[in-house]
Amino acid sequence: MKIYGDVQSGNCLKVKFLAEHLNLKYEWVETDLLNGETRSEEFLLKNPFGQVPIVEFDDGRVIAQSNGILRFLARGTDLLPSDVFLQAKVDEWLFWEQYSHEPYIAVSMFQMFYLKKKKEERELWRVERGEKALDLLNQHLSNHDWLVGDKLTIADIALFAYTHRCYLGGFQLEERLSVRSWLNRCHEELKVNTDTIT
Amino acid sequence: MKIYGDVQSGNCLKVKFLAEHLNLKYEWVETDLLNGETRSEEFLLKNPFGQVPIVEFDDGRVIAQSNGILRFLARGTDLLPSDVFLQAKVDEWLFWEQYSHEPYIAVSMFQMFYLKKKKEERELWRVERGEKALDLLNQHLSNHDWLVGDKLTIADIALFAYTHRCYLGGFQLEERLSVRSWLNRCHEELKVNTDTIT
Repeated sequence: MKIYGDVQSGNCLKVKFLAEHLNLKYEWVETDLLNGETRSEEFLLKNPFGQVPIVEFDDGRVIAQSNGILRFLARGTDLLPSDVFLQAKVDEWLFWEQYSHEPYIAVSMFQMFYLKKKKEERELWRVERGEKALDLLNQHLSNHDWLVGDKLTIADIALFAYTHRCYLGGFQLEERLSVRSWLNRCHEELKVNTDTIT
Repeated sequence: MKIYGDVQSGNCLKVKFLAEHLNLKYEWVETDLLNGETRSEEFLLKNPFGQVPIVEFDDGRVIAQSNGILRFLARGTDLLPSDVFLQAKVDEWLFWEQYSHEPYIAVSMFQMFYLKKKKEERELWRVERGEKALDLLNQHLSNHDWLVGDKLTIADIALFAYTHRCYLGGFQLEERLSVRSWLNRCHEELKVNTDTIT
């Protein structure tokens, strides 16, 4: 299995975290987002959406969309509960992450980290929604160890990816104690080597 | 089963279309988005995300996130293929819809329809991305009758919801012939009563 991804992208790191946690054999194909490598003719043949990450299997079949990939690779493991209602609760977080968390947290990170904007030059409406997303996460985690059920699932991996580096987008976790404890639990389970991550 | 939704919201209509297509018995609880009904204390107890649609079952359990609800209610039916690879292809469209289609098409519709903005007062960056989303959809449908496999799935329902009314957001389908043919196929399968939809 090949994972095409940009190691600076949280969406891509999700798949890397999962693959390493499950000891899946994979080859990482570094694909530079900023250099337009996801827009090349060759790449668009693999993924017409023009986005990373994708996974490509030995038979040439491809799956795109980070949270969809998590769902596919985690099936049959503890990372995706077998109970269909709990699966639906996992899906809630996966869709919420892509609609109500990533566009605010990750895009603010992009603006500061790549576009070299200062904290005060971020888009205010995004910042406000990002703060709300982190508050909601903190609220939920104030009486749950994990986002769904009683152990790590792909919902945690999906939300961990950008939350654990949200400071790069100017967000603070100092007063969000429940998020911080949960990040520590995730770190412990995922054994993420933060040295390799900016 | 109760569906809490705002009949003007494409995200809510997805669930209505699916429930009617599958002949599921449900009670529609109209929940006015603009009047803050999704932010009331009572509603937030059902769904801390503060969004519609949600489905509430007779035992009080609740599922949120439109595309997650589709996935849950469609399991075991023709609307969600049993093949896990095809399920992953359905998931691609579900996540793409929430990240790369709805924020541009639906939000532009909201700005024109609710906020009474003129077409030229829409946010240009959203319009451009919405146009790109419709182009991608048209490209895919130029050699596929349905988004995944050879029949209607929840991927089609999810994309149909806002695409079939995108003109309310100032988008044109005149030259996107493949999208138009697909919308007709969806209409025929879903027997949507467009009279009740603005």
